[in-house]
Amino acid sequence: MRVGPSQEEIRRQNLGALLRYVHIHGATSRAELTTALGLNRSTIGALTADLAGAGLVSEGAPRETGRAGRPSPVVRPESERVFAYAYSIEVDRLRAARVGLGGAVLDRRETARPYGVAAAETAPLLAAFVKEMQQAVPAGSTYVGAGVAVCGLEMREEGPVHVKPETGFVDRSLGAALDAHLAPERPILVGNAADVSALAEHARGAAVGCDDLIYLHRDVGVDAGIIVRGRRLTGHGGLGGEVGHMVVQPGGRECGCGSRGCWETVIGEYALLDGAAGGGGTGRRAALSIVDAAARGDASAKAAVREVGDWLGFGVANLVNIFNPGMVIFGGTLRDVYLASAARVRSRLNSMALPASREQVKLRTPQLGEDAALIGAAELAFEHLLAAPLDATP
Amino acid sequence: MRVGPSQEEIRRQNLGALLRYVHIHGATSRAELTTALGLNRSTIGALTADLAGAGLVSEGAPRETGRAGRPSPVVRPESERVFAYAYSIEVDRLRAARVGLGGAVLDRRETARPYGVAAAETAPLLAAFVKEMQQAVPAGSTYVGAGVAVCGLEMREEGPVHVKPETGFVDRSLGAALDAHLAPERPILVGNAADVSALAEHARGAAVGCDDLIYLHRDVGVDAGIIVRGRRLTGHGGLGGEVGHMVVQPGGRECGCGSRGCWETVIGEYALLDGAAGGGGTGRRAALSIVDAAARGDASAKAAVREVGDWLGFGVANLVNIFNPGMVIFGGTLRDVYLASAARVRSRLNSMALPASREQVKLRTPQLGEDAALIGAAELAFEHLLAAPLDATP
Repeated sequence: MRVGPSQEEIRRQNLGALLRYVHIHGATSRAELTTALGLNRSTIGALTADLAGAGLVSEGAPRETGRAGRPSPVVRPESERVFAYAYSIEVDRLRAARVGLGGAVLDRRETARPYGVAAAETAPLLAAFVKEMQQAVPAGSTYVGAGVAVCGLEMREEGPVHVKPETGFVDRSLGAALDAHLAPERPILVGNAADVSALAEHARGAAVGCDDLIYLHRDVGVDAGIIVRGRRLTGHGGLGGEVGHMVVQPGGRECGCGSRGCWETVIGEYALLDGAAGGGGTGRRAALSIVDAAARGDASAKAAVREVGDWLGFGVANLVNIFNPGMVIFGGTLRDVYLASAARVRSRLNSMALPASREQVKLRTPQLGEDAALIGAAELAFEHLLAAPLDATP
Repeated sequence: MRVGPSQEEIRRQNLGALLRYVHIHGATSRAELTTALGLNRSTIGALTADLAGAGLVSEGAPRETGRAGRPSPVVRPESERVFAYAYSIEVDRLRAARVGLGGAVLDRRETARPYGVAAAETAPLLAAFVKEMQQAVPAGSTYVGAGVAVCGLEMREEGPVHVKPETGFVDRSLGAALDAHLAPERPILVGNAADVSALAEHARGAAVGCDDLIYLHRDVGVDAGIIVRGRRLTGHGGLGGEVGHMVVQPGGRECGCGSRGCWETVIGEYALLDGAAGGGGTGRRAALSIVDAAARGDASAKAAVREVGDWLGFGVANLVNIFNPGMVIFGGTLRDVYLASAARVRSRLNSMALPASREQVKLRTPQLGEDAALIGAAELAFEHLLAAPLDATP
């Protein structure tokens, strides 16, 4: 009989499981780890020693439990010393962060994205951020890899990345360009901004414990990171989640994709900008200024927000009927539109979604806020570390 | 260190893996099993002996390979002796079958469903089928359980079943009613017709090897069995796949769900019946007669089929953008509508779906035909057997 995985495979799995646990849950007592991982005390001790030896965790004084008996030592992720770089390439800005194991943002940079610069061409700008941030990295730190969040439209149209259905994320030209500026032996992984934001909110944000969720993301276009039974919906060719091209208005406004009446045409940035008697300008800031104007009572801005809110609820109702999700999260600039029009969104949901499904869905904004994309991008790199902790460190 | 699963757990997993392999692939040589399961020859021999001892498989003479050397014995599922009962409760008919391990339909019955009889109330009629079929069961046969396919609308509205998100299928009143007529120690599992049809086509029909697929099913309503990365999309509360209530025509025809312009209102049975200058009547037969009339050149029937085909393509395009599926299968009476209007469906897809996603999707009809629901229902019972082969037999 085959006796299952080898001792070495089991050890690697257990190392990964322990490190993943403290990466997600933070400082954890050995006693809790014993229970959570179903391993005995001496095994937890041996695994912790191995991870501490590799500089991935540290053991420290226990928290006061107030209970009798010897308290259990606490295992902490080395959040200050083990880190990934995360990038977010957005339509009108570029962001970079240094993210520690455990998900804390240790350092961050942001700049406007020059008009007309393709995603792959932003690599020198992102690399400049890294040079700056590197100066603040404590001696003895470990860089484990980098993750890049790119909006779905650019992944599709400019093709900086090739997305494999299985692994989901494989870098191409953008990764190659960044490689020149980073330790080339560490992975650079590229993901859709909506997808990685969904993963981040699922792991450590609003959707902890909710395995069926839809994270809606609007930058210029609208797409979604969809998690089904705890795993990302990738689709056959890695293109799943293009909810912005669900047609909601037959014969409606022409969409950039060539179709008409796509959801994106009625809730996208341009719908909001066109609906309000424009202060001019485009981009995230212009969209948010209309939401602000509506809050101040500007009549045409209020009408535009109402209209977009109605359509937002319309599409969400369709998705609720199709997916029966436990949560819908409104990310990107949809966050502000949702907050300004929550009553209209809920009203549409009540008139269009099936009763059981609409009762089960929670409508939320990202608990990680704008950091969701950065933390999610970093998770791509941490995922590699967690798969084989000792192989991925020097 | 914990050394992983126990010998006994590994043996059970391996027994299940071997039985699943021959259940899906049919007669298989020991040599092929060795390769496919990654186990050595003596282990395969021992597992086969155990399964043969329990009457689940038999070993037989090898097929002629034309190659030199001693040919490898062939392991076959005991398709004639190990069986499940399968039921399909449809809007206007009731079907039952005896399905052998390996998926062959050994016996079948069908009758009209009396008007106004709720799903749970059909149990005596289904039990009568079982009594008839039991007379043809060979001595020494093993009954492993039963599966019931019910259309989504009835699962939702009449509540014969309670669907748990995790396992998906748990019987309530219908199961209890059937239990009285069947060996009560064996499980009776209830599933949505679209879901179990999707599972059947994925396991042994049109979608073998395609892990992202949508099986559209129309009885009176329209719903879908959706498979994402090889697993069923259940949704948070087991209600995922209600694609018939995606609104495609804002302010359109009133739907039974209380909303307006649902996809169901423009591709459902009534849309077809209302569109054609009616020969009267409702139900599956009436719908199919309109497709026939269109094929014979009847002008109003042709117009109705064209119209429904356009809307069919419209909704499919939305689903293709959202899911990026590898395949869409048109089941139930949608099969005939699709075949009569395939060009219009494809044309809508071309104008509305994103190029990469529409190029990746195959449009198909069920390879298992109308048996998909019955074979899928039987799979629910076989799934229990495969999880622990020796525990589930007497």
